[in-house]
Amino acid sequence: MNFSAAEILLIIEAAGTFAFAVSGATAAIRSRYDLFGIFVLAFVTAIGGGTIRDLLIGNLPVNWLTDSLAIFSVIAGFLFTLIVFRRMKKLEGWLFSFDAAGLGLFTVMGTQIGLEAGMGAGISIALGTITGCFGGVLRDLLAGELPLIFQKEIYAIAAVAGGSIFVGIYQLFDALLIAQLTGIFTIILIRFIAVKKQLGLPKFELPDESST
Amino acid sequence: MNFSAAEILLIIEAAGTFAFAVSGATAAIRSRYDLFGIFVLAFVTAIGGGTIRDLLIGNLPVNWLTDSLAIFSVIAGFLFTLIVFRRMKKLEGWLFSFDAAGLGLFTVMGTQIGLEAGMGAGISIALGTITGCFGGVLRDLLAGELPLIFQKEIYAIAAVAGGSIFVGIYQLFDALLIAQLTGIFTIILIRFIAVKKQLGLPKFELPDESST
Amino acid sequence: MNFSAAEILLIIEAAGTFAFAVSGATAAIRSRYDLFGIFVLAFVTAIGGGTIRDLLIGNLPVNWLTDSLAIFSVIAGFLFTLIVFRRMKKLEGWLFSFDAAGLGLFTVMGTQIGLEAGMGAGISIALGTITGCFGGVLRDLLAGELPLIFQKEIYAIAAVAGGSIFVGIYQLFDALLIAQLTGIFTIILIRFIAVKKQLGLPKFELPDESST
Repeated sequence: MNFSAAEILLIIEAAGTFAFAVSGATAAIRSRYDLFGIFVLAFVTAIGGGTIRDLLIGNLPVNWLTDSLAIFSVIAGFLFTLIVFRRMKKLEGWLFSFDAAGLGLFTVMGTQIGLEAGMGAGISIALGTITGCFGGVLRDLLAGELPLIFQKEIYAIAAVAGGSIFVGIYQLFDALLIAQLTGIFTIILIRFIAVKKQLGLPKFELPDESST
Repeated sequence: MNFSAAEILLIIEAAGTFAFAVSGATAAIRSRYDLFGIFVLAFVTAIGGGTIRDLLIGNLPVNWLTDSLAIFSVIAGFLFTLIVFRRMKKLEGWLFSFDAAGLGLFTVMGTQIGLEAGMGAGISIALGTITGCFGGVLRDLLAGELPLIFQKEIYAIAAVAGGSIFVGIYQLFDALLIAQLTGIFTIILIRFIAVKKQLGLPKFELPDESST
Repeated sequence: MNFSAAEILLIIEAAGTFAFAVSGATAAIRSRYDLFGIFVLAFVTAIGGGTIRDLLIGNLPVNWLTDSLAIFSVIAGFLFTLIVFRRMKKLEGWLFSFDAAGLGLFTVMGTQIGLEAGMGAGISIALGTITGCFGGVLRDLLAGELPLIFQKEIYAIAAVAGGSIFVGIYQLFDALLIAQLTGIFTIILIRFIAVKKQLGLPKFELPDESST
């Protein structure tokens, strides 16, 4: 049972790493970066969120230094982007799907790692959200863009919702696999609905400056 | 005595966290970020300096993961900004006051933590300056701005001065509370004078490029 | 023998730190930063790559907190930039030479530290490349620029090549000093050739967007 949970975590991790590596490599091509820049952005986007999580909880050396699966998943996403993906049509739609999958997979994985490190439910959900979202924040910073997740359709809230559902099901019913799948599915579903209906969080103004 | 020092440190931390959360949330509103972006910038500005300090000295898991006071102070600053602060008049003046308070409080706290971790006086003052200044650097990076503290009126030097006075009084007279208050007061005072008189550090030119 | 290796590592470190501090200070002057900003960029450029490496492998407190040699080398590079360097002619050429030296010295040092921490050859070369390259990435982010190393002439590949040659010679012949010197020389040589002949890595396009 434990072994099976570990195996599932590995598959989740590989799929999420691949998905985010594609998203990072595509952003680098857009910024006119060279082959090395494309690789670094694939790498940083894919392992950035988990690295920040590992640093914060003191889980050092960070995971990917001793995890060849993560490295191979990044390389696979990098090569896939250069050879196949950038020639595909309707790039935006595919890119969104990869990103939604990565967000769901990483958030649930990060939340589970937080619980396993003995953190409380709220902090674990925050660590999951950081795992899911901050690779993309680093990607945008390195690509010279304002972080998308602070502006566009509901994003991090999807991670918080999915992480909460994962924790709830896992702690109430002790059913790890069902909790994982439900959490991931929730996140992907919220993202699809949010983008389809262009749902965003409210923004605010500083009245002092509205006349500027 | 030890207990009282710990208590004072907690109050300092909560006040500084609140002040910096307000400053981060306001910067996010200015960048037209949504509700989540406002929360993240409040959070990163408030805990960023201390997180970098904790990472550098290996104080892991970082403080705020196990410290609900810090989380509540961020949430208080976030809500205060949305509900009260952004409707206030003379925002600039208030924002400056919050920022000066946060700088003073965090610098002295960070310096004290450095000393308690067994670092020398110089390194402890550097750690205090990092604690006080780098939340704002992360805020500016995430808001897509050049870091203010590298350009505007005397800022980090105020932190260095206040940290040094704190260490001096603490080590000479072993009077923690007086050392803390004097250090904090020095930093706030220097910031007020610097902004009032628009005192800045010198800038330089590269002669090679002056004709560009 | 061990002692001599440690000594050589110290000299390498001081020279690389000095070189990168000059590069960071010059970038700050270009961004019109004040005296403090110039110091911070000198510092971050010089110790940023090694700090990220130490964080990733859990080598905490990070090296420079307890290493006065690093601090003095940064201060020397900072003062040298303000007093001598910015008045020199043909700044670009000198700046390039400092940067190439720093890249060679830091990459080989970082790779060696990776091996000594028990990492495999590939990960050690990656850690060396991070040590050599990411100070410059942080410098560019703090100066508000897109990271140069993702766009310009062959840069990180030079680090990967030099790190690989270092590991190869060291593991085959157990000749540390020769391995170090050959690795450093390879990196500097590749950089000189790349800039002289303007060799870059290939860039790519997203066909979907070529009509935009």
